[in-house]
Amino acid sequence: MGKRIVTLGEMMLRLKPPGFERFFQTPELEATFGGGEGNVAISLANFGLDVAFVTALPDNQLADACIRFLRGYGVNTSFVQRSGDRMGVYFLEAGANQRPSNVVYDRANSSISTAHAETFDWDAIFKDAGWFHITGITPAISETASALSLTAVKAAKECGVTVSCDYNFRKKLWNYGKTAPEVMTELVKYVDVGIANEEDCQKSLGVRLEDGDYETTIPSGELDAKRYEALTKKIFATFPNLTYQAITLRESFSASHNGWSACLYNGS
Amino acid sequence: MGKRIVTLGEMMLRLKPPGFERFFQTPELEATFGGGEGNVAISLANFGLDVAFVTALPDNQLADACIRFLRGYGVNTSFVQRSGDRMGVYFLEAGANQRPSNVVYDRANSSISTAHAETFDWDAIFKDAGWFHITGITPAISETASALSLTAVKAAKECGVTVSCDYNFRKKLWNYGKTAPEVMTELVKYVDVGIANEEDCQKSLGVRLEDGDYETTIPSGELDAKRYEALTKKIFATFPNLTYQAITLRESFSASHNGWSACLYNGS
Amino acid sequence: MGKRIVTLGEMMLRLKPPGFERFFQTPELEATFGGGEGNVAISLANFGLDVAFVTALPDNQLADACIRFLRGYGVNTSFVQRSGDRMGVYFLEAGANQRPSNVVYDRANSSISTAHAETFDWDAIFKDAGWFHITGITPAISETASALSLTAVKAAKECGVTVSCDYNFRKKLWNYGKTAPEVMTELVKYVDVGIANEEDCQKSLGVRLEDGDYETTIPSGELDAKRYEALTKKIFATFPNLTYQAITLRESFSASHNGWSACLYNGS
Amino acid sequence: MGKRIVTLGEMMLRLKPPGFERFFQTPELEATFGGGEGNVAISLANFGLDVAFVTALPDNQLADACIRFLRGYGVNTSFVQRSGDRMGVYFLEAGANQRPSNVVYDRANSSISTAHAETFDWDAIFKDAGWFHITGITPAISETASALSLTAVKAAKECGVTVSCDYNFRKKLWNYGKTAPEVMTELVKYVDVGIANEEDCQKSLGVRLEDGDYETTIPSGELDAKRYEALTKKIFATFPNLTYQAITLRESFSASHNGWSACLYNGS
Amino acid sequence: MGKRIVTLGEMMLRLKPPGFERFFQTPELEATFGGGEGNVAISLANFGLDVAFVTALPDNQLADACIRFLRGYGVNTSFVQRSGDRMGVYFLEAGANQRPSNVVYDRANSSISTAHAETFDWDAIFKDAGWFHITGITPAISETASALSLTAVKAAKECGVTVSCDYNFRKKLWNYGKTAPEVMTELVKYVDVGIANEEDCQKSLGVRLEDGDYETTIPSGELDAKRYEALTKKIFATFPNLTYQAITLRESFSASHNGWSACLYNGS
Amino acid sequence: MGKRIVTLGEMMLRLKPPGFERFFQTPELEATFGGGEGNVAISLANFGLDVAFVTALPDNQLADACIRFLRGYGVNTSFVQRSGDRMGVYFLEAGANQRPSNVVYDRANSSISTAHAETFDWDAIFKDAGWFHITGITPAISETASALSLTAVKAAKECGVTVSCDYNFRKKLWNYGKTAPEVMTELVKYVDVGIANEEDCQKSLGVRLEDGDYETTIPSGELDAKRYEALTKKIFATFPNLTYQAITLRESFSASHNGWSACLYNGS
Repeated sequence: MGKRIVTLGEMMLRLKPPGFERFFQTPELEATFGGGEGNVAISLANFGLDVAFVTALPDNQLADACIRFLRGYGVNTSFVQRSGDRMGVYFLEAGANQRPSNVVYDRANSSISTAHAETFDWDAIFKDAGWFHITGITPAISETASALSLTAVKAAKECGVTVSCDYNFRKKLWNYGKTAPEVMTELVKYVDVGIANEEDCQKSLGVRLEDGDYETTIPSGELDAKRYEALTKKIFATFPNLTYQAITLRESFSASHNGWSACLYNGS
Repeated sequence: MGKRIVTLGEMMLRLKPPGFERFFQTPELEATFGGGEGNVAISLANFGLDVAFVTALPDNQLADACIRFLRGYGVNTSFVQRSGDRMGVYFLEAGANQRPSNVVYDRANSSISTAHAETFDWDAIFKDAGWFHITGITPAISETASALSLTAVKAAKECGVTVSCDYNFRKKLWNYGKTAPEVMTELVKYVDVGIANEEDCQKSLGVRLEDGDYETTIPSGELDAKRYEALTKKIFATFPNLTYQAITLRESFSASHNGWSACLYNGS
Repeated sequence: MGKRIVTLGEMMLRLKPPGFERFFQTPELEATFGGGEGNVAISLANFGLDVAFVTALPDNQLADACIRFLRGYGVNTSFVQRSGDRMGVYFLEAGANQRPSNVVYDRANSSISTAHAETFDWDAIFKDAGWFHITGITPAISETASALSLTAVKAAKECGVTVSCDYNFRKKLWNYGKTAPEVMTELVKYVDVGIANEEDCQKSLGVRLEDGDYETTIPSGELDAKRYEALTKKIFATFPNLTYQAITLRESFSASHNGWSACLYNGS
Repeated sequence: MGKRIVTLGEMMLRLKPPGFERFFQTPELEATFGGGEGNVAISLANFGLDVAFVTALPDNQLADACIRFLRGYGVNTSFVQRSGDRMGVYFLEAGANQRPSNVVYDRANSSISTAHAETFDWDAIFKDAGWFHITGITPAISETASALSLTAVKAAKECGVTVSCDYNFRKKLWNYGKTAPEVMTELVKYVDVGIANEEDCQKSLGVRLEDGDYETTIPSGELDAKRYEALTKKIFATFPNLTYQAITLRESFSASHNGWSACLYNGS
Repeated sequence: MGKRIVTLGEMMLRLKPPGFERFFQTPELEATFGGGEGNVAISLANFGLDVAFVTALPDNQLADACIRFLRGYGVNTSFVQRSGDRMGVYFLEAGANQRPSNVVYDRANSSISTAHAETFDWDAIFKDAGWFHITGITPAISETASALSLTAVKAAKECGVTVSCDYNFRKKLWNYGKTAPEVMTELVKYVDVGIANEEDCQKSLGVRLEDGDYETTIPSGELDAKRYEALTKKIFATFPNLTYQAITLRESFSASHNGWSACLYNGS
Repeated sequence: MGKRIVTLGEMMLRLKPPGFERFFQTPELEATFGGGEGNVAISLANFGLDVAFVTALPDNQLADACIRFLRGYGVNTSFVQRSGDRMGVYFLEAGANQRPSNVVYDRANSSISTAHAETFDWDAIFKDAGWFHITGITPAISETASALSLTAVKAAKECGVTVSCDYNFRKKLWNYGKTAPEVMTELVKYVDVGIANEEDCQKSLGVRLEDGDYETTIPSGELDAKRYEALTKKIFATFPNLTYQAITLRESFSASHNGWSACLYNGS
């Protein structure tokens, strides 16, 4: 199966009313688990790859079920640390037509937000690993989670592991006193492959196209490969350690209908 | 409808797998709202009484639904304060045969646990009120909630309102540095009608039957009115302010089959 | 919250197979409550307004649940009269693609159809009220309901309350011996704000555009503001009491996809 | 399959909340069809017998589904007449422990209550038939349904068909001005096989055991064959046309747990 | 109702996850019954026609339910033979957007695949029948089912019954050693009305348009009546017994959105 | 976690109507996976042990889901062989009160029934293993599965692995020409720990208590340790290789209420 892939992040309990209902129209919630980095782990495991997911979860039966969920897809959960007080929860209403999707977060004080970097055995985690994936979500959760993320990418680099990072800016999360660029520009120094949409580049890294950098006649919301090439050049100039940079674009047709496209640039 | 009844406490989101299933056997949770004092309010409203429920809930859509739930039963929710960060949640597996029911709490940092006594308008709450009901659960949640409870019973007494209290001892909750008797013996001084089982009297008030207080041949687990009379005398001796004391008994036949009985004593 | 809004009409039990299923494909019906005027009350309550719904419902547990439903949304149900024999019921299949939605009514002899005008306390209902909303559905139900509607609008006007009316023509309902225009032209004399689509104006009020009134090149089914202005002028000529008249248009793209637009004209 | 069996009565839409829930706790109702005589037809069809069910149902899609339901079990529905305005509906809450089951009827003005005897082709119905079953429910529905029932048993006897009748007294239904004994004593003259519990004999036929008729030491609620023999003798004395009389007994242990027993007496 | 219509084929248990879910996302499967020829029987019965479905089903409770399902729609099931070991099963995931529908078959060794032609009473089946419908699916199931199909069409012709056949080519099924054309060209000799899309004509009958037969500029995937007329001429030339030939076209817009069109040619 | 435990057997798709419903009352089946040996594997994994389950499953998406199910519980599925045509299916109605549970099997020609012993890598399977568990079910499925079972126990013994066997007699399965004792007496020669109820000993091994072996006054259906000791002695006499023999007893109170007890004897 090749060398192990490792991802690190938060898995939350995902609670959603049936179909397109609003909260509590029916006294029932669909209950699954979700989180960007865990979803990546599951997708890779579905392709038959050897992938481990690293996180912290409390020592209760909800977290047991979350681990069972990951393990069912073949994800290696042996590096999941049981610590802290609670699993994050988010409540989701699926959008319909003009009504947008709606999320209520209840994720403060989750186990991952209080997990200290030194409580993980990084040598064991990255032994035999070939790739490590992280996102801009975890550093946004708390000061502790930010330090955990930085320790993780450094450890990965020391072990000779390729590091990818989705810069993923989440405005609601950056509440602990630092700005995203303060944290992310340090973290991205240890990244080989960057992934982001244009807004993430601006909000997470502080890199944006200025007047004069690039002129276009392509309407906003459509993929403009030349524009993205200009943006990528500025990123490569700031982070010469990057080998690849992908720029993604989501076109939003309605609450339940999106288009996706992306460009990949080689900076080496 | 007579004078208004007021109850104060915490309403939580109650999440339960279908039927007698274990957590996440089916990816679905029944989602309703529950809490001892709110349940009392709903029951009284079902009998056609004028009842108001006082609590703090966050300013989100889950709390909106909780208020809609209470209001549907005719409970007056105009004194529900919107403050704090989150609604408490508990996850419940219904027991079956030998397997006991199982509860996972996720209620730390709930709105009621951080609601300060002075943010409520006690004069408005108790204006025209004839009865106030509280339990030993709220004082156990946090130092703040303990102060809120004490303020509430004092305000009720000042307004000439009859106060009832279910001493209800919850071992898992008393975590903020004080013991139950330290708090409850102060609070019960403002109570007219006390409700409790024998264990609550002992754990919440520190009142227990000693050797020599009472001898019986009635098997433990069956209602022994004489024993409860002896216990009640000790309570009345300690809290001469009490007019009535009820002692309850739950007989547990199986996880889903219980018997209930109670004795009521007049201390005046 | 401003002055109270009052709406009057029928709430029915609404029974619908799951999703897009036909009747009894699955032995299950979604069970909620619906009715044009009650829906208006709920929507206004959702916006935080003080709104009371007036109707008659039988003294059984289905009607209890209907009242609980309304009260949950914050609608004042203290003027709901418990009288008569039954709650109306309608069975609905949701349309899909080419298959249109399908309704089976079972609403004859409902409580509202037998409720006499003198059994309501109009002074109490309109005390402190600023607005009253009614539709052309209630006068169509029965001779008694027609008299109830007329009494209501007269009482509202006497109390200085603004009256709005959706002329809403329901062909299936006008079965008790009078035509819609016979009843509605009398009722609309007490209305300040009229709402209708073009067909309602014609069928409920007998007001229609004739050859020569207006020529247009805009395709039928699209909003033609000039045409609607001509129609509105004829309505204002017949009912000089009207201050505003709204003309609505539903464009039907498929069984589950509609467009809505409207024009509002000031007749004063 | 032997000679055809015919049953006549009302099939209603049966709406029930899931499991042991109260009405509208969940916005869903289980939707099936039920009625004493139709249930008998289905049971006999399940045993492989040739059985036809006679009733009147409205010409709508709910009635179509009811017919599909009966036909699925192999019941001959070719004598179901499509007439009248509506299908009767009943709403049922299943009892649990001490809480009894609860029924809300909405069956007034159903098709069977307005179906005239002369609109059925009795010669066709009883051609090749060997047995006809009716109950005391149908004559209780309306004056018209009472006449229909009497016509049916007379027609059956004229065709040489054995007639059975469950006297089944339903207090809530006898509202059209006649008492049950006034109607039933005439109808039972055409019956060969009577079925009833002791209360039905008393309430439907006016036959009861008096002091001195029978003395016993068997506790009430247990099967007392001698007592029932005494009762049966009184019935045979009044209705010498009867060949068999069965007396049934339901022991009610809880809302969901019953015992059944019966005695059969041969009067010939 | 006119002369009886007869269809012959396989009914299978159809198991499908809820909505657009993948297999076992929820531990639940919608369970109904399906099969091309049985679906035709149900549709015709829905139009009020007298239609009998002929098949073989095992003697178990799943097959009992399948018969109840057919009978509910008014299909005559008296010619359904109970023999063999099992009912075929298919598992279906509904496609969504770009993801196509997905079927897992588990239909080997079904009762119809082992049912011998001589175990059916063809004289009884075709007595009073006016039309017989069969498809290319049944002959594909097994050598035995192929012989059954041929016997059936011959018996129908001998009884003067019109025979229709949907050539329906199912690549996955032709596994018992014969090719579709080997079997179907013999069977179609007894057919009066043929139905097929262009691919079925080619794969089932070996009839295809060659270069020079027909030139067109109409894009593939759109209905080309002239092209289909050319194709039909070749079919009529090979099978002069045919009176009518329909050519159908399905346009596939997405996994859940199709268009249908067809041409009918009279060969007599 | 100690040395690996290995179990071998068949996992089937388990389809069950909701609650206590009969088949297809609702068009829905609960869909999970079950099988005696796989259930043992899951239970041991729940206790935190290192356990591998060996079986054959077809290469389709149903089997993928079955593997995901096992893996979720932490069972090692790396020795599951993908071969053969289908997964066995069983349909289950849960019994209620007097109505017994009801099973319809559809498991013929399953992958495990056609899996040859030489296609498994026994050295890899039993490397580092300490315990192997098998039952009398697998040898009953087919001649091939019988040979597979015998090969497995021999290979386990050669690798120094302790072997346990539940003799489990399934009358419906022994259809391939050999009797249970013919096969099982050979297989049990390689077993260290035997598990069975009294009937299994008799039907699977041909060992039974005769007159004179043992006399008792304990009612049948209650645990009689002395009787079981006598039975066990006869088993140890026939199979001196056995170290332990457990005799189990199920008391059946109703369709959904059973009692379990067992005795364990040391034969060494």
